[in-house]
This record gives sequence, C-alpha cells and structure tokens, in this order.
Amino acid sequence: MPDISADVRNAKKASIELASLSSDVKDAALNAMADALDKNRENILKANSEDMKKAEKLLKKGEMTQALVDRLKISDVKIDGMISGIKDVVRLKDPVGETMSALELDDGLVLYQVRCPIGLLGVIFESRPDVVPQIMSLCLKSGNAVIFKGGSEAAASNKALFKILQDAAASKGVPGDAFVILESREDIRTILKMDGHIDLLIPRGSNSFVRYIQDNTRIPVLGHAAGICHVYVDDAADMDKALKVTLDSKIQYPAVCNAVETLIVNSKIAKAFLPKMMDMFEKNNVEVRADGRARRILGERAKEASEEDWDEEYNDMIISVKTVDSVSEAIDFINSHSSRHTDSIISENKDNILRFVNTVDSSGVFINASTRFSDGYRYGKGAEVGISTNKIHARGPVGMEGLMIYKYILVGDGHAVKDYAGKDAKKFSHRTLDRKFGV
Amino acid sequence: MPDISADVRNAKKASIELASLSSDVKDAALNAMADALDKNRENILKANSEDMKKAEKLLKKGEMTQALVDRLKISDVKIDGMISGIKDVVRLKDPVGETMSALELDDGLVLYQVRCPIGLLGVIFESRPDVVPQIMSLCLKSGNAVIFKGGSEAAASNKALFKILQDAAASKGVPGDAFVILESREDIRTILKMDGHIDLLIPRGSNSFVRYIQDNTRIPVLGHAAGICHVYVDDAADMDKALKVTLDSKIQYPAVCNAVETLIVNSKIAKAFLPKMMDMFEKNNVEVRADGRARRILGERAKEASEEDWDEEYNDMIISVKTVDSVSEAIDFINSHSSRHTDSIISENKDNILRFVNTVDSSGVFINASTRFSDGYRYGKGAEVGISTNKIHARGPVGMEGLMIYKYILVGDGHAVKDYAGKDAKKFSHRTLDRKFGV
Repeated sequence: MPDISADVRNAKKASIELASLSSDVKDAALNAMADALDKNRENILKANSEDMKKAEKLLKKGEMTQALVDRLKISDVKIDGMISGIKDVVRLKDPVGETMSALELDDGLVLYQVRCPIGLLGVIFESRPDVVPQIMSLCLKSGNAVIFKGGSEAAASNKALFKILQDAAASKGVPGDAFVILESREDIRTILKMDGHIDLLIPRGSNSFVRYIQDNTRIPVLGHAAGICHVYVDDAADMDKALKVTLDSKIQYPAVCNAVETLIVNSKIAKAFLPKMMDMFEKNNVEVRADGRARRILGERAKEASEEDWDEEYNDMIISVKTVDSVSEAIDFINSHSSRHTDSIISENKDNILRFVNTVDSSGVFINASTRFSDGYRYGKGAEVGISTNKIHARGPVGMEGLMIYKYILVGDGHAVKDYAGKDAKKFSHRTLDRKFGV
Repeated sequence: MPDISADVRNAKKASIELASLSSDVKDAALNAMADALDKNRENILKANSEDMKKAEKLLKKGEMTQALVDRLKISDVKIDGMISGIKDVVRLKDPVGETMSALELDDGLVLYQVRCPIGLLGVIFESRPDVVPQIMSLCLKSGNAVIFKGGSEAAASNKALFKILQDAAASKGVPGDAFVILESREDIRTILKMDGHIDLLIPRGSNSFVRYIQDNTRIPVLGHAAGICHVYVDDAADMDKALKVTLDSKIQYPAVCNAVETLIVNSKIAKAFLPKMMDMFEKNNVEVRADGRARRILGERAKEASEEDWDEEYNDMIISVKTVDSVSEAIDFINSHSSRHTDSIISENKDNILRFVNTVDSSGVFINASTRFSDGYRYGKGAEVGISTNKIHARGPVGMEGLMIYKYILVGDGHAVKDYAGKDAKKFSHRTLDRKFGV
C-alpha cells in the first residue's frame, strides 16, 4: 500500500514552491493542460468507457441511478467544456501577491497586507470527473496544492484526466508533487487526521458524506451539508412573479441544493394564490405537502405535511407548503428551518423586502428571483469551488477568491518595539499609503 | 442551575435583531457604555478588590503568578483605558450593510455582495477583565451577539463590568439578550456542543486551553495555540540591526506569543555575530541554548539545545540558536517548526529577503523588524479581537474585519433560471455596476 501521508507531506512542501510561481509559468502550464486534454481525447474516452461499463451494470442491478450515470459519462462535448473551463481560468487575474493595503507605521516602517494562497487543499467529490480539470486549474492559478479523492465509480476517468493534466503542468515547470490523487476510501481517513499539513477540505457530495467529513477532522471544511431553500410569497406579492419563481425554483432542476423545498405563503394571499399554485404543480407532477391552513383551501389535492417535512431536503418533485400571518413569522420560520443556503421573497412591498433581506440569515437572500440562480456560473465567478453555508471565510457560491488568504509583510530598518513603549515613546503614524509591496 | 442553552438560543435570536440596528443606535449605546463605566468606577473597583483578595491569597500559596495578578488588577487608569477603547470603537466606520460589489446579471437582475455580521460569537478568556468592554464594544459595532466566559479568578470584576455595559446598551435600545456572561467552567462544555447556534469561538488563553477548545467542538475557532516565532540572521545582515531586532524580539516582553523563541543564524556570519549576541544576552540575563555548530563558537557560555528546543515556546528569558548554511535552509526550518505566527529576516540582500517573504508560510513575515510588532494596536486596528494563525478567514492580528462576513442579495423582477438554459437561452451580462444595494 502506498504511503499516502508521505504524498501529503510532499504536496505541502510543493505548495510553498507553487505559491511563488510567476503568472507566466502558471498560464503556460494551464494552456499546456488545455492542449493536453485536446490531444488525449481518445485516452480519456477509453478510460471513461471502463467506468461506464461498470456503471451500467450497477444501473441494471438498481445500485446506481440514471442521474449518476449521466454525470459520469464523458463525451467530446464535455471535453470541450473542460478545455474552455481551463481557458477561462487563464483569463482570470492572478490573485497571488496582490497588495491589499499598505500602512506606514512610522518612518521606514511599512506594513503590507498581501494576498497569498491558502496552501494545501483536499477536494473530495463524487462521480463528476469534470471536477478534476476545474479544481486543478483553479488551484494552479491561485497557487494552491491539492489532493483529490474522487468516487470509486469514476476512478479510471479521474486517474486518466489527472495524469494528463499533471504531466502537462510539469512540462512547464509546475512541481508534480503539488497534485495528488488518492485511490482508496481508506485514504480519506488518513487525510482527515493530517491537520498539520492540509489547510482546507472541500467535500462535494451527499449531505451525510459532508457531515461525516465535518465531524471527523480538525481541518476547516468549506461546503454545505444540506440545501433547504425557501420561497416566501408575501401578501404584497405579484401573483404572476410568485407563480413563475416558485415553479422555476422547484422544477428547473429539483435534484440540486439550490432548488426550493418549502414554500411559505402569507395567509392574506393564500386563498388567491394556493389554488393557482396547485393547478401549476399538478400540471407539472409536483407533489404538494401542506399544513392544515393550506389544506383547508386545497383540500385533498394536497397531502398533509408533518413536522419532519420542514427539515427535509427532498431533492425531488415534492414541495411542502407552510402558512404564516406576517413577514416576521416567515423570517423566524426560515431562520429556524433553512440550511442558510438561499431563500427568496416574492413581494412588491419595500419594507417587507428590506426586513427579509436584513434578517434572513442565509448566504443568498433573493428578491423576486428563483433560488436556482444561487450558483457560481450565474454569479459570474467563472469556475466554482463549491457552495458554502459557512459563516466565516467564504459564503455562498465560492470562486477562486475562496482559495486565497493574506499575509502581513512588515518592512523595517532595524525597528524595535521598545522605542514605541514607556516614557518618550515614539508615536505610530498609521498613515495609509497607495503603494504596492516591494523591496 | 440556570439553563445556559436557553441563553445561547436567545442570544442567537437577538443576533438577528442586532444585525439590523442602525449606526446611530449602536453609537449612542457605545457612548452610554463609556459613560456608565465612568459613573460606576466605585462599583468596578469594589468588585475587582474581591477578586484581588482571593488572588493575593493564591499568590502567597504559589498557586498564581505575579503576572496574572497584575493583569487582573483594575485601576482608575485601566478604567480610563477601557473608556477610551470604547470611544475608539465609536469612531470606527460601521461595516454592516456595506456594498462590497454589485454585478448586473441581466436586465433588472442585479447581484449585490453586502457585508454583514457573522452572528453569535463565543469569547473565552483568562484573567483580563478589560477584554469585556473591548470585545463587547467591537461586537456591538459590528452587529454580533456575544457569549463571554472569563476566568473564575476574575469572576466578580467581569460580572460587574458586564452588567454595567449591558444595562447601558439596553438603555439605548440594544437587545439585552444579545450579550451573555457564563459563570461556570461546565458552561464551556455546553457551548462547545452548540454548533447550530454559535458561529465562531475566540479562545484567548494558554496553548493547552486553546488546543482543548479546538479539539472539542465543530464550531470554527479563531485564534492561535502556540506562538513560536523566529528571527533569521542572514549572511547579508547588518550587524547592528541584527543585534537590536533580536534583543527586542526576545526581551521586550518575553511572556507573550509574538516574542522570538528560536534564533536562526547563517553559518557565514556566525563567527562575527554569535559572540556579540552572547555578550548582549548575558548582559540581559537571557539563557542561550545552542546547536553544536554554534557551541563550537560560543563554548560553554551557551547550553546545549536538544531537538525539543526547536518546538518549544519558552515564554521566558530563554532563546534557542540554530545554525544554517543558506536562506533556503532557514526557510525550511521555519516552515517545519514555526507556529505560523511571525517570523523575521535580518538581511540587506533583496533576493534573500524576497525568497523569505514569498516562501515563509506565516501570518507575519517581517524584514529587519522585531517580531514584537505583530499586534493589532501596532497594526493600527484599534481594538484587537485576537491573533489568528488560521489559514482561512482572518490571519494575524484580527480587528473588527474578522467579525464580518457577507451575504449575496439578488434583486430580480420575477426572473427564472429556465430562461437562461437550453435552446434560445438568454445570456448573462455579468457587468460590474458602481451602485449600492437598495430597493
């Protein structure tokens, strides 16, 4: 069995070198990576067909879903997408070394805050091989080393993509040790313990999987376990907007984290709104689970919601409906049951909108717009690292900015603190300078 | 026994209200807090004298150090300091609601990134009652609720300060539930489990205490366990600067985290530098523990360093000395043994300086300056929340900026994602706007 912990330690060392690579070297490596994918289409498709054969057997046995098989499948069009994704990253500005602030503390003593990579990241994901070029290109541009662990169902595809990309990057001077791909599930347990070496974990997968990672490591975790999003239809809602946004939030792609799970309806608009909503959902084969007050209007057309429904992520063509008497009650309900991902208000009343926006404690608070917009591509971030429901560092859809931190560089000339203490202490000037770090 | 978890839940609820208080209300509350400290000097000093009586008994029994007793003692001058600290916070710009970016996604669909408080913080600290007004004022201004747990040795002082400040804030409309003070050590165990409610923990205390917190909670922790700082004297160092910075880094205040613990000396300058360094340290009663190569120069004047010395935070008048042959070797040594707090290079060689700055993976990398400058006050931050050696969110000395996060507000007009997907998909404009959020 290969010694994974040695690979991790080497990647950590390589991360230091990676952090000081020039933009030119990194961009040349990225272009080489894009070219290499183009030249190695046959290898990639061949490796993928191995995974697909196994997947189709599992599909027949009912041990894998069609959705997973679809995500696993690599086509020439998907390779085109990977290539254009890498080229998008080439066009992103190199964030490493950017001077964020410069402050004169005293004559000849200047404090710079300079952006730098986080270090070594661990990315754990399920059957989507396109994560490999996406994350690898973002990490390279941002100067971060990365350890991958993909799902076993995509092992051959991931390995082929990884090797092609790693070799191409190395051909332009990127340290090969900076990228590691893990093979077995046991390796995850090893890396969860390496908090002295791995700086950030980014798990992408099922709720229980993300929760397992969060519960079993001291390494900070960026991501989200659940995606329980709400749409609140205010009494001052425009009926057409309410219907359109609700339907889109539910059915445009129900299997993902930014789809709505619970619709909250103000009692003052319930009689007018709910029957139209029901017609719309029936037409689109969406099951409605409603509370008592909503069912007094909808009758047997809606199933009865239980308390558990308010905390369930269906990821399916099911929606729960809750009735409230005010925007405040809606906000309290959301702050109690939301996964702090994305929640939307449908209203034309400015006071209600502002109250919602200021007091709903979620990474995305939307006004008259579908929760499905909560996504790195739609947010204009280019590539997306993941969606975070954390309250620190990076929140919501996270792009390259989430892979960066900063260091303070203090440039002195033999300065000692004793001169700024006690009697006759020198004073700090604390004067902001418009200057980039340099020596 | 009071139900702490109910207090925490109420504080979480109050944090939502706190997040939407106006700057005027918050500043009025801060001024009232400053006035209240001034008016209640007698109460504060009386409560403190209770703690001092107990502390002096412990001091006599050898169960408490003089340094701890000094930190515990409140004087009129210290109260003046607390008052001016709060007034400094009044002058800080209110960060809540600041529009960080505005991006048009399409006609009538605009994405705002708006700064907001993190939510509910837990601050756990040892015998320094001045932490209470400092953190409470920073939290109020930044819209965060806070749970305090101070050391039992300062219980009466902390409680008196807390009550005075809480009442003063409440008199101006700040929800009283937003601030909680815990009484017993057992309460800590309760709050460590409340990861659904507490968003960030800030422990300030001994290494083992911070480590205990980090190891026993799923709540993110901001802070530092160890403070092992280095000074590297390059072969291109200016001798006077090297001696001055080294001495200041060690003796200006040896008991704190930003004091130097290990001095790294380039072998090419060792013969010239080490004897002068030894004279200086002998004169100042600093014990030197040196490696074999340094002892061949220093002889019996220096004790022998063991491998353990490279990973020890003395917090005392002791320094270890390591000899290296190059800046690269110094950097490798630092990246292996540093606590990623603050490390300084003494050199006049630009290449060596840049290599050091780019590849030492610490929150503070200093050039010809004492490690003791690594501090929120010296960095011009006004009040300091703590010093972080984390690699995400906030690093180094952390001021109010470390208590903030952001949310994404998407303003639409009934926009649905389906119109941006499939055939005839509308295109996103992703045009940066110079606009503040408003409805």
